[in-house]
Amino acid sequence: MPKTSQRSQSVPLSPFRKLIPIAEQAKEKGKKVYHLNIGQPDIITPKKPIEKLRQTPLKILEYSPADGHESYRKALVDYYQRFDVKLDVANISVTTGGSEAILFFMLTCLDPGDEIIVLEPFYANYNGFAHIAGVHLKAVTTYIEDGFAMPSLAAIADKVTAKTKAILITNPNNPTGTCYSKKELAALAEIVKERDLFLCVDEVYREFCFDGNTFFSALNLTSISENVVVIDSVSKRYSACGIRVGTMVTRNREVTEMVGRYARLRLSPPALGQFLAEYLLDDDTLYLETVKKEYDNRRQLVYDRLKKMNDVDAYLPGGAFYCFARLPIASAEDFCRWLLTDFDYEGATVMLSPGEGFYATPGLGKSEIRIAYVLNTTDLDAAMDCLEVALSEYVKNKEAISLLSKAL
Amino acid sequence: MPKTSQRSQSVPLSPFRKLIPIAEQAKEKGKKVYHLNIGQPDIITPKKPIEKLRQTPLKILEYSPADGHESYRKALVDYYQRFDVKLDVANISVTTGGSEAILFFMLTCLDPGDEIIVLEPFYANYNGFAHIAGVHLKAVTTYIEDGFAMPSLAAIADKVTAKTKAILITNPNNPTGTCYSKKELAALAEIVKERDLFLCVDEVYREFCFDGNTFFSALNLTSISENVVVIDSVSKRYSACGIRVGTMVTRNREVTEMVGRYARLRLSPPALGQFLAEYLLDDDTLYLETVKKEYDNRRQLVYDRLKKMNDVDAYLPGGAFYCFARLPIASAEDFCRWLLTDFDYEGATVMLSPGEGFYATPGLGKSEIRIAYVLNTTDLDAAMDCLEVALSEYVKNKEAISLLSKAL
Repeated sequence: MPKTSQRSQSVPLSPFRKLIPIAEQAKEKGKKVYHLNIGQPDIITPKKPIEKLRQTPLKILEYSPADGHESYRKALVDYYQRFDVKLDVANISVTTGGSEAILFFMLTCLDPGDEIIVLEPFYANYNGFAHIAGVHLKAVTTYIEDGFAMPSLAAIADKVTAKTKAILITNPNNPTGTCYSKKELAALAEIVKERDLFLCVDEVYREFCFDGNTFFSALNLTSISENVVVIDSVSKRYSACGIRVGTMVTRNREVTEMVGRYARLRLSPPALGQFLAEYLLDDDTLYLETVKKEYDNRRQLVYDRLKKMNDVDAYLPGGAFYCFARLPIASAEDFCRWLLTDFDYEGATVMLSPGEGFYATPGLGKSEIRIAYVLNTTDLDAAMDCLEVALSEYVKNKEAISLLSKAL
Repeated sequence: MPKTSQRSQSVPLSPFRKLIPIAEQAKEKGKKVYHLNIGQPDIITPKKPIEKLRQTPLKILEYSPADGHESYRKALVDYYQRFDVKLDVANISVTTGGSEAILFFMLTCLDPGDEIIVLEPFYANYNGFAHIAGVHLKAVTTYIEDGFAMPSLAAIADKVTAKTKAILITNPNNPTGTCYSKKELAALAEIVKERDLFLCVDEVYREFCFDGNTFFSALNLTSISENVVVIDSVSKRYSACGIRVGTMVTRNREVTEMVGRYARLRLSPPALGQFLAEYLLDDDTLYLETVKKEYDNRRQLVYDRLKKMNDVDAYLPGGAFYCFARLPIASAEDFCRWLLTDFDYEGATVMLSPGEGFYATPGLGKSEIRIAYVLNTTDLDAAMDCLEVALSEYVKNKEAISLLSKAL
């Protein structure tokens, strides 16, 4: 039997990958599992656009152009205008989800062995795309104590080497929910300009900025307009993760041209998804406002509950639908597993992402978890009940074991 | 301005890439262009499944599982049974088109620097995926004189080195339309077994085998069942190229597991496309028979027309919807360009793929073209009129220029 490749053995796995079969077993045993580990929201996709899709004449389901339907790209030009971003259709390439845009960014802007600076904790799948592209992620640590705020310019500059080609951030951030301000981005632009780097900003959570903060797109950093590459997706915005429609936006023509080469290889992004994505852009204001309000409520709920838990460090995240928390435990991974194998509260438990997998620096995040508040407030409250009871029980157990082992 | 990557500069372009802007210019000038250069059929997608898709309740357009909807994978198990292929759901991974399956095959089965044996001329985009994966394609030449038949085992064995990890063929073949028989595949299995290689067969044209030949799937090569990886797609079968639903099939569990790692990175194949793909499998016998008959008629038309043209070498292809032809000219690329820039017949011209880009060996295919018979017989006939008139005119022009230059 021929052997699979060496490289495939080392594809980085998701932070909660090992827990999936354990969660399945728990469910088979009749346990209710609240999934706060994944970014799949329970929010309803807008209905009118789906109705419009049902009415769309579909005679031959052709390839779309490799860079997407022209009409959708035009509609996106108008969409970005909402954020005072002035674009031309030529700046926009439609991709198969934001995921493909990330890979295309790495392939077009970096060569094997090149380095990208990221802020840890970061979206763990960046590891996987970097693995395919053969590039290295160099992490600047951010800290829960200040809500994972943008690190100092000096800390970032410190990581820049001759191999550094880009800085990649997520704004608002997954997994921390942190929103970066215009000021912070402008500061970043200085290094980017000085060192002639690409600044790739994954803005898929753009619509979810709370506390009255206005989202500031990297596309408005006019001093570095040819350095900026923005990753986008309709997945989270409209709760339409399954249609696989993303976007790569850049004013750097050479990048667009090179992205086009990779795009033509895979022929076309999904056409059905693009039809829907175009309809989703119509008349979406009320929907987006409602969804944002809902996430804001959930955010408040999660934060309020965490704050009340003993010895838990938490902060109020500024955006997206994630937050990190530090628990009074040595191994979040062990705790997350125990939640599924040994714990239930009224027949239910909660699945969380252990924090370690979101860090590149070994040893960090071991006591942390990521919470994705993708469930309605009733379920979310019940899930937080589970977490609260579990934490107290787990800590007591550990203390008992520790005392016992000392006594023996 | 930061520079794009070195690697992106050398992404292999499609054989007709350079002609696209020229064709656009011709159309802008009012010329009718018959596109026989691309694999986008004019066949109507089955209507009933589209109606079913319109009726499908869609509340939250969620990610599908990374390896596809379970119900669709089950339906595929039944589909393969039609070809006497016995599979388990676990053998099937749904991909974003056949394209993604090709990339996943290369990533999971080969390391950078490893080699794949292909039969040239071959599907040109294999070059691009090999470029991303950092693997090398080593071509064994096949010849128009025998309809691009499978080369001898000795010729293939001759290309096997210590770096060779796989043989990749397309059956029925794109760009040649050649159908490989059970006997030919069984012979290939011998080398595959002896050298412990992967045999990857791209069977996306499986349904289009003519002259009463029964398609033989590599999945029926029981002596090498763990060496075989099959690439599949609904694109051509149901004229549904835009839905981006492909499949990777293998009984090699380790390959499936590694494919799963890459699949989870990009989260999900397109969900809407998968709904439709599942419906497409229902009650498709009449549709597939009708479409096959249509392609058979087109094939016969193209062959008959080519045969009547002066000094054109052609053969009757056994499958798919492509054929190659050798023209009495020195540069098919020049001819294909001239067709768009300097020629029209009653206001129309034809766009073809120059053959050279389908070969890896420099110098081969220069006089050859690929014809994709993706237009209805009326248009196809009109396109062949263009080709016939153009060829005679082009050859006369060239002769005149040659005489003139000799005289001067």
